[in-house]
Amino acid sequence: MRGLQPWARYGFLVVAHLLALGLGAVVLQALEGPPAHRLQAELRAELATFQAEYGACLPPGALEELLGAALAAQAHGVSSWGNNSEARNWDLPSALLFTASILTTTGYGHMAPLTAGGKAFCMVYAALGLPASLVLVATLRRCLLPMFSRLGAWVVVPWQLAPARAALLQAAGLGLLVAGTFVLLPALVLWGLQDNCSLLEAIYFCFSSLSTIGLGDLLPSHGSSLHPVIYHLGQLALLGYLLLGLLAMLLAMETFSELPQVRAMVKFFGSSDPLTAEDQDGILGQDELALGTLPPTAPASEQAPAC
Amino acid sequence: MRGLQPWARYGFLVVAHLLALGLGAVVLQALEGPPAHRLQAELRAELATFQAEYGACLPPGALEELLGAALAAQAHGVSSWGNNSEARNWDLPSALLFTASILTTTGYGHMAPLTAGGKAFCMVYAALGLPASLVLVATLRRCLLPMFSRLGAWVVVPWQLAPARAALLQAAGLGLLVAGTFVLLPALVLWGLQDNCSLLEAIYFCFSSLSTIGLGDLLPSHGSSLHPVIYHLGQLALLGYLLLGLLAMLLAMETFSELPQVRAMVKFFGSSDPLTAEDQDGILGQDELALGTLPPTAPASEQAPAC
Repeated sequence: MRGLQPWARYGFLVVAHLLALGLGAVVLQALEGPPAHRLQAELRAELATFQAEYGACLPPGALEELLGAALAAQAHGVSSWGNNSEARNWDLPSALLFTASILTTTGYGHMAPLTAGGKAFCMVYAALGLPASLVLVATLRRCLLPMFSRLGAWVVVPWQLAPARAALLQAAGLGLLVAGTFVLLPALVLWGLQDNCSLLEAIYFCFSSLSTIGLGDLLPSHGSSLHPVIYHLGQLALLGYLLLGLLAMLLAMETFSELPQVRAMVKFFGSSDPLTAEDQDGILGQDELALGTLPPTAPASEQAPAC
Repeated sequence: MRGLQPWARYGFLVVAHLLALGLGAVVLQALEGPPAHRLQAELRAELATFQAEYGACLPPGALEELLGAALAAQAHGVSSWGNNSEARNWDLPSALLFTASILTTTGYGHMAPLTAGGKAFCMVYAALGLPASLVLVATLRRCLLPMFSRLGAWVVVPWQLAPARAALLQAAGLGLLVAGTFVLLPALVLWGLQDNCSLLEAIYFCFSSLSTIGLGDLLPSHGSSLHPVIYHLGQLALLGYLLLGLLAMLLAMETFSELPQVRAMVKFFGSSDPLTAEDQDGILGQDELALGTLPPTAPASEQAPAC
């Protein structure tokens, strides 16, 4: 592979990713296509049966109109009915959860702005809030990562491991800690509290929230039988979970991306120039900008970390 | 502020963010609460009217059961009806779009796995695919960012600006380029193609996709009147948009976070130690891990960029 041009290596990586994308699509198609098609057929049969039995009473299209209105409203998180007539969509805990899902880029979609003003505000809020969150995370990272490093070093130093192995072990440990504390534990709690939710579904929800994918297909429902206070506490707990979980995830990602093994992989697929200082930074220093078109030169005093 | 303990400064930043979260929630509550409540009331009235007019024909609960089934299916992206009876949920373009929304962590949620196997596969796929995507982006970054830096430098060098101002100008330029190419232009195209979509909604959709928030409340619908081939091309275009857009966003974020002004802000809120080398890297080098609990020392040869 080393003999290949850099562009060929980039191309290989990109093509490999596109193939992985296609593979995932094909597998999901095989897993999900038939069940979805069956569900759709069931629904249509149910609708047809309903029409056949009671269609005589109903004016043509009345049922479709009603269903259409209900479905359109649900797409924005407005439920058509509920035993709890006081259930308000945008009560403060729900609104807080929504803004947190915006700022963490999770974006469940179980609630979404209806008005043009709301949509515009969401955009401005995200455009300002996301960079601000990045600054916050960068700041907290400077405080927390050294702590983790020292903790990890304190654990592995007695074993006299090479720096690279120690880093890998520490990253693996951090990964397991994050997975345990932020996926498994909350999933177990959720599984215990929600009666109609399997452990897999609870883990799936936690994973989806933590990775900020936020599919939003599983969320504690408005019409649940939980006491309103408990429900609101649950929403606030989810809010805290999103924020803390994202911070933990970003710290873990940072640790992962700084691993010598990962750097080596990135360097391998990247440029073929023998880079030293750029291995550390990954980006040209700002002082080189002023020098215009001069090629980047690596300071002789820096050494790349041993892989 | 400089006189405050580091912890006080962290605390200030965190509290400021929580206040911003609350502020966003309150504003959205004011903007969206009444319209959502009104829509809910309208729907309930419609349902009540329907029941009153035709309730005599229908057995009690039959309508609620039908509506409930339809709404539950829609939560997983299965539509109850459609003129296009060949509309398959998990056809290849849709499945590709779904896997892309997973890998970019956008997670629209307009489609979601129904089966336990599908859910488990999504988690494994994301757990493996997201780190791989990070490696890909890091690799492409090494190739693309120097190109942008040289381009930007070529533009600003004639103006003889200080490095910090040049960096700010370059970052602003990159931001505008990304916003123009990846938000405004696609939004205009979408606005032109979709007849029931305002320009604001198109911009809102592009912004939501690009930032990976992915609320999923606005998506080209299955039941649209577009020719199937055009619809599938649109899905593939959206797929490409998600992938390229995310790459552009991450590059822009990287440029933003490397700005001297941002570093100064992070340094200001961060530790009070006079850091020099850490300003460049933001993280302890791996070689310091092996040295265990020794405090980080900055190599004397490196200089922090002038702010």
